[in-house]
Amino acid sequence: MRPSGRAPDQMRTLTFEPGFTRHAEGSCLVSFGDTRVLVTASIDDKVPPFLRGKGQGWVTAEYGMLPRATHTRGNREAAKGKQSGRTQEIQRLIGRSLRAVVDLPKLGERQIIVDCDVIQADGGTRTASISGAWVALRIAVDKLIASKSVAEDPIRTQVAAVSCGIHQGTAVLDLDYDEDSTAGSDGNFVLTADGAIVEAQLTAEGETFDEEGLLRLLRLARIGCTEIFAAQLKAAGR
Amino acid sequence: MRPSGRAPDQMRTLTFEPGFTRHAEGSCLVSFGDTRVLVTASIDDKVPPFLRGKGQGWVTAEYGMLPRATHTRGNREAAKGKQSGRTQEIQRLIGRSLRAVVDLPKLGERQIIVDCDVIQADGGTRTASISGAWVALRIAVDKLIASKSVAEDPIRTQVAAVSCGIHQGTAVLDLDYDEDSTAGSDGNFVLTADGAIVEAQLTAEGETFDEEGLLRLLRLARIGCTEIFAAQLKAAGR
Amino acid sequence: MRPSGRAPDQMRTLTFEPGFTRHAEGSCLVSFGDTRVLVTASIDDKVPPFLRGKGQGWVTAEYGMLPRATHTRGNREAAKGKQSGRTQEIQRLIGRSLRAVVDLPKLGERQIIVDCDVIQADGGTRTASISGAWVALRIAVDKLIASKSVAEDPIRTQVAAVSCGIHQGTAVLDLDYDEDSTAGSDGNFVLTADGAIVEAQLTAEGETFDEEGLLRLLRLARIGCTEIFAAQLKAAGR
Amino acid sequence: MRPSGRAPDQMRTLTFEPGFTRHAEGSCLVSFGDTRVLVTASIDDKVPPFLRGKGQGWVTAEYGMLPRATHTRGNREAAKGKQSGRTQEIQRLIGRSLRAVVDLPKLGERQIIVDCDVIQADGGTRTASISGAWVALRIAVDKLIASKSVAEDPIRTQVAAVSCGIHQGTAVLDLDYDEDSTAGSDGNFVLTADGAIVEAQLTAEGETFDEEGLLRLLRLARIGCTEIFAAQLKAAGR
Amino acid sequence: MRPSGRAPDQMRTLTFEPGFTRHAEGSCLVSFGDTRVLVTASIDDKVPPFLRGKGQGWVTAEYGMLPRATHTRGNREAAKGKQSGRTQEIQRLIGRSLRAVVDLPKLGERQIIVDCDVIQADGGTRTASISGAWVALRIAVDKLIASKSVAEDPIRTQVAAVSCGIHQGTAVLDLDYDEDSTAGSDGNFVLTADGAIVEAQLTAEGETFDEEGLLRLLRLARIGCTEIFAAQLKAAGR
Amino acid sequence: MRPSGRAPDQMRTLTFEPGFTRHAEGSCLVSFGDTRVLVTASIDDKVPPFLRGKGQGWVTAEYGMLPRATHTRGNREAAKGKQSGRTQEIQRLIGRSLRAVVDLPKLGERQIIVDCDVIQADGGTRTASISGAWVALRIAVDKLIASKSVAEDPIRTQVAAVSCGIHQGTAVLDLDYDEDSTAGSDGNFVLTADGAIVEAQLTAEGETFDEEGLLRLLRLARIGCTEIFAAQLKAAGR
Repeated sequence: MRPSGRAPDQMRTLTFEPGFTRHAEGSCLVSFGDTRVLVTASIDDKVPPFLRGKGQGWVTAEYGMLPRATHTRGNREAAKGKQSGRTQEIQRLIGRSLRAVVDLPKLGERQIIVDCDVIQADGGTRTASISGAWVALRIAVDKLIASKSVAEDPIRTQVAAVSCGIHQGTAVLDLDYDEDSTAGSDGNFVLTADGAIVEAQLTAEGETFDEEGLLRLLRLARIGCTEIFAAQLKAAGR
Repeated sequence: MRPSGRAPDQMRTLTFEPGFTRHAEGSCLVSFGDTRVLVTASIDDKVPPFLRGKGQGWVTAEYGMLPRATHTRGNREAAKGKQSGRTQEIQRLIGRSLRAVVDLPKLGERQIIVDCDVIQADGGTRTASISGAWVALRIAVDKLIASKSVAEDPIRTQVAAVSCGIHQGTAVLDLDYDEDSTAGSDGNFVLTADGAIVEAQLTAEGETFDEEGLLRLLRLARIGCTEIFAAQLKAAGR
Repeated sequence: MRPSGRAPDQMRTLTFEPGFTRHAEGSCLVSFGDTRVLVTASIDDKVPPFLRGKGQGWVTAEYGMLPRATHTRGNREAAKGKQSGRTQEIQRLIGRSLRAVVDLPKLGERQIIVDCDVIQADGGTRTASISGAWVALRIAVDKLIASKSVAEDPIRTQVAAVSCGIHQGTAVLDLDYDEDSTAGSDGNFVLTADGAIVEAQLTAEGETFDEEGLLRLLRLARIGCTEIFAAQLKAAGR
Repeated sequence: MRPSGRAPDQMRTLTFEPGFTRHAEGSCLVSFGDTRVLVTASIDDKVPPFLRGKGQGWVTAEYGMLPRATHTRGNREAAKGKQSGRTQEIQRLIGRSLRAVVDLPKLGERQIIVDCDVIQADGGTRTASISGAWVALRIAVDKLIASKSVAEDPIRTQVAAVSCGIHQGTAVLDLDYDEDSTAGSDGNFVLTADGAIVEAQLTAEGETFDEEGLLRLLRLARIGCTEIFAAQLKAAGR
Repeated sequence: MRPSGRAPDQMRTLTFEPGFTRHAEGSCLVSFGDTRVLVTASIDDKVPPFLRGKGQGWVTAEYGMLPRATHTRGNREAAKGKQSGRTQEIQRLIGRSLRAVVDLPKLGERQIIVDCDVIQADGGTRTASISGAWVALRIAVDKLIASKSVAEDPIRTQVAAVSCGIHQGTAVLDLDYDEDSTAGSDGNFVLTADGAIVEAQLTAEGETFDEEGLLRLLRLARIGCTEIFAAQLKAAGR
Repeated sequence: MRPSGRAPDQMRTLTFEPGFTRHAEGSCLVSFGDTRVLVTASIDDKVPPFLRGKGQGWVTAEYGMLPRATHTRGNREAAKGKQSGRTQEIQRLIGRSLRAVVDLPKLGERQIIVDCDVIQADGGTRTASISGAWVALRIAVDKLIASKSVAEDPIRTQVAAVSCGIHQGTAVLDLDYDEDSTAGSDGNFVLTADGAIVEAQLTAEGETFDEEGLLRLLRLARIGCTEIFAAQLKAAGR
């Protein structure tokens, strides 16, 4: 029995609120249950130095957590003067996941910076971030298309992410904080709408796993992402 | 004529949404028009080192702005590795303003840390922060009272803040971004519900002012704060 | 009775020693009683990046305190690796105050950097800094005029600053450390020689104030600045 | 055909040189072909603050790369003043991998810090680090056992890591730099000698993959780790 | 011929102004010609962590240069966020030089922190700092003796420093900036009043030297330090 | 009697292993007994900003110590976020020593960065670094000559360094850690193969010294460097 009473293959309530803030070219407040992340996509007319003059664009991401997004207040990274290893790991993952579905030359020499800021955390902040980031990116790119700044749509397909893990011997989908903190092993899967795996990260904590377990988790991830893909499309008005 | 069509002594639409996030002991999403700040109040059982064993509490504040809260994206302070002078100036002001209405010995040896994170900026983020901070603080302290952690209410009165400035020759209340960026001179007033001035900060940019101008701005500030005080009480359920 | 025996509207002994160091284009050792600040004005032929090619100059300030300028030794900011919020707040105030009396386009595309380093502190280091900074700036600009590097004098008028506060129920001028650390409320006023207010910052610590109190402090500030303006002129050889 | 002429399931030449440095309780120079990493295991009698008094030990890792370990010189992280996101990601992975095979309560209240410094890089520095780290840890723990500082062996089994990827359409084992920089997708697997998966990290760059591909890479990883486990045992004198 | 017209073995005008600032237990403004350094000695009742409970004291030094102490303005180290290698090298040298003449157990468990801040630089700031530091230290320790905080004088003898170098083929004493920036090779000698060498640092820039040259410079240093020792005694009131 | 049983004028076993790593243009693993330093010389086609367009090259050095190179593990400088004063002092010394024997205009507009990383420390890491750095530099420059990138050999002569000190009243050569940590006074000499002194740094710790002592140490340094010069030539294949 899951603490939340959900079935093993049941996602938390999923909502995407597009246009949550008004300045960004694309924005979205994504909720996976009580986990809420504000995502904005900002278009910058300059690419990073290593890409100048190469005729292609770039998509990158930054991640942060408000100090009291969590049960106990964490120190503000700006005040500490550095981003934690965890923060950097997550923002690198978000960036790679988005780039996997973007045709960078079609984007032209511009950069889209996606900011994912966790307003409230209850497990799965990185998977909610990736899933919401696609919506914010989609909205921003649609503006580039509308203004004819890009000729062809640079987004090849959708990308979404979800966590899975073994909780008290059962493989479950979309872990909340209670499950996440006691899971024997868990993983994050980043999938595309056309069925491909973009990233898979599995970690055994306490309890290891094998091929069989890996495939079971992946099956759950496919179920969860199917639901996310549908919600993304609706939020992006497609 | 103000860009927004408001009368000179008219505040923007004011809303306080208490309990916006679930983990913090007190929280509030405050809006002064399009300026939206998420404020949380976190109770910490330890006081800072300089107060240990002195039989009194402490109230402090931290301030931040999401990178795309503004028209053009700003760099993330956590990524830059330091808080700007502006950020530090604002968070020091918020902390002083709150301490002005709190009886620290009555709070007991505990610290309340108020985090003000700007979700969307349209001028007046520091005054919205102070005004919302009082609500979050009030809610958190009410929990301390309810749990009999404090014997007497340590909050003496309400505190609120509003900006005023000279826009195209007219003294106006609660400047939005368009007014703020073109104002000849402007100021921020922090007032208490019993009529006292806690902080007054006036800066002439381009256009200086005199005693007469100073008093005119202060009169406007009193009008604005009266409206804020009423909204705060309602939001805090008092 | 003031600890120093001064009358309520009496400044401390005021001295400006121009040319205190030999390398800077302008320099001055300013003393407000036992508070002594070494100010230098350095002319730099480059403007900061945000002003390049805009046909105007810039004036900025940096502030520091020698570790043992104070009663007990403070940590060296260079060793700690960052400037405190207080330091940044003060240097921003000094820069704004100077720019309020400088016609930046007349300065041409160059920057004047004013360094205010507190040799000995006894209250009022920021007001002494601003007052001395004008002298150093004046001397440096006079060299630009003498060498025909600028065609017209970019300095419109004098600027000076002084603190005022309520000490044991009496409004007093130019607080020293003993008064400052016990004042119920105090403020800093930055005024120009032609009677305008450039900055006013008032803070209630313990004791709040009202319009009446504000005006009383401002009246004292005008008395103090009149004395400072005369001394500045003499020091600058005008 | 692989650039190195190796068969798809062929590891590079594997060597572990135990006792490479004399001060550390355990040390090992591990080579996966031209990738060479110096690993040391240092025993510290204190655990980190979050574990004090909890009756258990800790194993953690730090990772670094000498500036000219690579084809072109990289900046020294100590000179830049911070560790990159990549460095932090890798050292967190090494630490988690080691802790997966250590019974922390049996280690007693002490910490073992494993330093992995890359002397020369040719792809696979994180997998060589993990594989060598087990040897250094084993040697250090054997000293604790010999001196009767621990009663029971806290190391449950061996842990090793290897990379796999799709190079020009073929799944290959233990990618060197040439393969790594052109691979369509690749992953790192951390396995234990008793057959369990501890970590699996797969990333598609350009080319995505599916269940079939994932299992194919995992099969290769098992082949590689079997060879590593044998070499580890020999190096650790078991 | 030296640019200043001095004889090869002639020091610049030497002055020590004791008690230059009022808060420090010992202070002194030392001038070697146009090089002026403000030195303060602060007594701290705590020793650094590595000496706690060892029954001895400590003497350490910090060094800084005001941004416009030099011909062209240097960046403020506090603003850059770190002390340069040169700064650290100099403050380590000052600390070692002072400790060479202090009997640390006789000082008791307290620390004396000597701050050397360069007001104006014209070559030889480190040697002026060391020479002035002894005076500030002497004054501070005399207060400890007067208040019977220490039983026996912990200062064994005087310490002073001077630079020497080869300028246009001639060995000269106490180089000023003009000589220093063109000297073929130069060195700093730290000597005690009883004739011993505490530190000798020689660097060939362009022109190397041999035993003969080294001894010639050392002879000059003895001449210079003899003059400094006399001036120190007078300044310290001995 | 020396702890190692060596005669007072006897060096530790000296080895230079050229070509220790494969990517650097020049590399060398130098050992002075148990002190082992990996040195690489990297050729960079850009000179630092202050030399651009001046028609000359530059040679600089960086120094680091692996965390467990020493008896007890030191903190990793990259993790602490800054290089210690000692590290900076040493890398500045290495750079100056190398530049003393290089004709920078003949090098052309390129920079050679020498990295000295201490693998294992047993006293004398800076002297081993300098001595090994010359070998790595020689190898790198020989490649520039072979590829006709430089017309004339920019290296004028050899440079080497060794430490000497007074251990239990006897002047001894090439101190190891046991001697270094108990020596009354010691020094480092950097000499060229044609007999000149490039740098001499002597420090009295506890025990001061005089001209006689200084010359005695220098005589020992000449003996040691003669042996190093011969080994360098052999290692560099000359």
